[in-house]
Amino acid sequence: MKLSRIGEFGLISRLQRQLLPAGSDVVVGPGDDTAAVRTAAGTLTLLTADVLVEHVHFDRGIHGFEDIGWRAMAANISDIAAMGGRPKHALVSICLPDDVTVERVEEIYHGMAAAAGEHGCDIIGGDTVASPRELVISIALTGEVAEEHMVTRAGAREGDLVGVTGHLGGSQAGLAMLRTLQQETRGPEAAPPAERWDRIRGRHLRPHPRVRAARELVRTGCVHAMIDVSDGLAGDLRHLADRSGVGAEIEQEKIPIDDQTRWAAEHLGASAFDFALSGGEDFELLFTAAGETAPEVLEKAAGKAGLAITLIGRILPRKEGLIMVGPGGRKEPLVQGGFRHFST
Amino acid sequence: MKLSRIGEFGLISRLQRQLLPAGSDVVVGPGDDTAAVRTAAGTLTLLTADVLVEHVHFDRGIHGFEDIGWRAMAANISDIAAMGGRPKHALVSICLPDDVTVERVEEIYHGMAAAAGEHGCDIIGGDTVASPRELVISIALTGEVAEEHMVTRAGAREGDLVGVTGHLGGSQAGLAMLRTLQQETRGPEAAPPAERWDRIRGRHLRPHPRVRAARELVRTGCVHAMIDVSDGLAGDLRHLADRSGVGAEIEQEKIPIDDQTRWAAEHLGASAFDFALSGGEDFELLFTAAGETAPEVLEKAAGKAGLAITLIGRILPRKEGLIMVGPGGRKEPLVQGGFRHFST
Repeated sequence: MKLSRIGEFGLISRLQRQLLPAGSDVVVGPGDDTAAVRTAAGTLTLLTADVLVEHVHFDRGIHGFEDIGWRAMAANISDIAAMGGRPKHALVSICLPDDVTVERVEEIYHGMAAAAGEHGCDIIGGDTVASPRELVISIALTGEVAEEHMVTRAGAREGDLVGVTGHLGGSQAGLAMLRTLQQETRGPEAAPPAERWDRIRGRHLRPHPRVRAARELVRTGCVHAMIDVSDGLAGDLRHLADRSGVGAEIEQEKIPIDDQTRWAAEHLGASAFDFALSGGEDFELLFTAAGETAPEVLEKAAGKAGLAITLIGRILPRKEGLIMVGPGGRKEPLVQGGFRHFST
Repeated sequence: MKLSRIGEFGLISRLQRQLLPAGSDVVVGPGDDTAAVRTAAGTLTLLTADVLVEHVHFDRGIHGFEDIGWRAMAANISDIAAMGGRPKHALVSICLPDDVTVERVEEIYHGMAAAAGEHGCDIIGGDTVASPRELVISIALTGEVAEEHMVTRAGAREGDLVGVTGHLGGSQAGLAMLRTLQQETRGPEAAPPAERWDRIRGRHLRPHPRVRAARELVRTGCVHAMIDVSDGLAGDLRHLADRSGVGAEIEQEKIPIDDQTRWAAEHLGASAFDFALSGGEDFELLFTAAGETAPEVLEKAAGKAGLAITLIGRILPRKEGLIMVGPGGRKEPLVQGGFRHFST
């Protein structure tokens, strides 16, 4: 059977049946982006891995080598953050084609070490091998979280509020601008104003995982489920809803999109809303929470990490599916977005 | 600078300067195949990663998909064994080209799960992505070891005995036979006798990491340094000597090579000695030890795991370098063998 017939998530679902963990110390096993293992009383060790492949996840024409390293590390750190954890130690395996020089490899590691260093995380090992063609970066990352604070994507309950941190769509807006300018090969005079351009480009090239905000949010005790926005709001809400066995509705007008992203979308003749829904790699947090004082408590918690939160919808019974409520109150199915591997 | 100019180990050495770990909990950092972190009092968590790339580490024409999975997992488990540790949890990241079907992916995982299952190790997560061309398997593995029992490649002392478990060269002999038969595309009638052929092929396709033997050896308290033979005896002895700051001499005639390997070498017109010295992937243990009763104690310890040990030489001062003592007592420099990435 071709992989494209069942897609990445279909494959993972089939493999899970083979890989049901036997050990009683495994609290979260295959199927989540991050696994959790009970190590000491009250403490869970988190384990996550992400691999980035040239021409699939990045292109040397668009991404600098330091950016490639930063983004690879940030994607892993974000998976630890999504469980409320703190990243600890990274192993970096890198497959290097012949045309990548020593200096470029050092730039990749410099980017990785910078992204890791922001969170007190060390690169302590890995593997370095030759690659016939593509540059491949595979990172495994450990983290830790108090067992009482761990939150997965599987805990959402009917009636929960749905919230996100920060703003969505910026990373995809930045990527779209980088691609457009590359294709047009226009001179600098045609480039957008420097400051705005730098900012929106940075959203894509140097994303900041929300480690501190996540830790503050889970400590409130209000948060039932959480996931990082790596596949786009629509895709990640679907992951969360599927694993929790619930439906959800999102109010389109409440999705937080900032001026930079709106400006970039306008400049490109694209939809900022599509960037937010299907773009991904914003590495903001999507969470569900309950409690009378939850909105104030959560806002205060995220505020400690310098972030705003926006409540954008609520959790419904599973049979309702995923619904988008448009500007006039019109409801439609939320279209599955997000980057899917192996899709035709 | 081209990577081929400084090689894999030169690159790692340069990167190490960038990656000196800051955390005081890191007992062994970059530079070893396995890192060690202090987690609970008296216990170290081990972390290792190995990546296997199609056309570099394996070929679909030679290796079955289950074999590819088994070998990838075994290579990682062997790195944990080399520290005296027990493998615990694996993360598997896999980059899949379009022509690898779902069934083949399941075979790869089946091979990995079988190799891991022999040591009570679970696959608990990872990542699955598309790859433009090569199949890439990247595994990160955790393990644990009592701090008092951990042994690295850096502990060898002048005067230590040098020993190995089992027999060397079998994996390379198996690979050489697989390659020769593939190239010759001879019919089954030209293949070597079935039973012998299966055994020597199995040495390459289904290596068995020496987890139990390693644990028994480190518990004797005699072992000062240990490494798994993954790059060939010459290459791994060099790694051990470099990290320990010592020299060594090996007696050629004592290198344990079994009848299967000698038979295969003869059949192929090759040197069994070269297979042992430069072949690698035997995943036997190379160790140094001291103590009056060490030979008996170590033999008994390995015997508990059903393995023999052979003492093949001794550790010298650094200035002596690495020496091979030939049949007539003639000494020559031990030639650096082993598979090197990026070498021209």
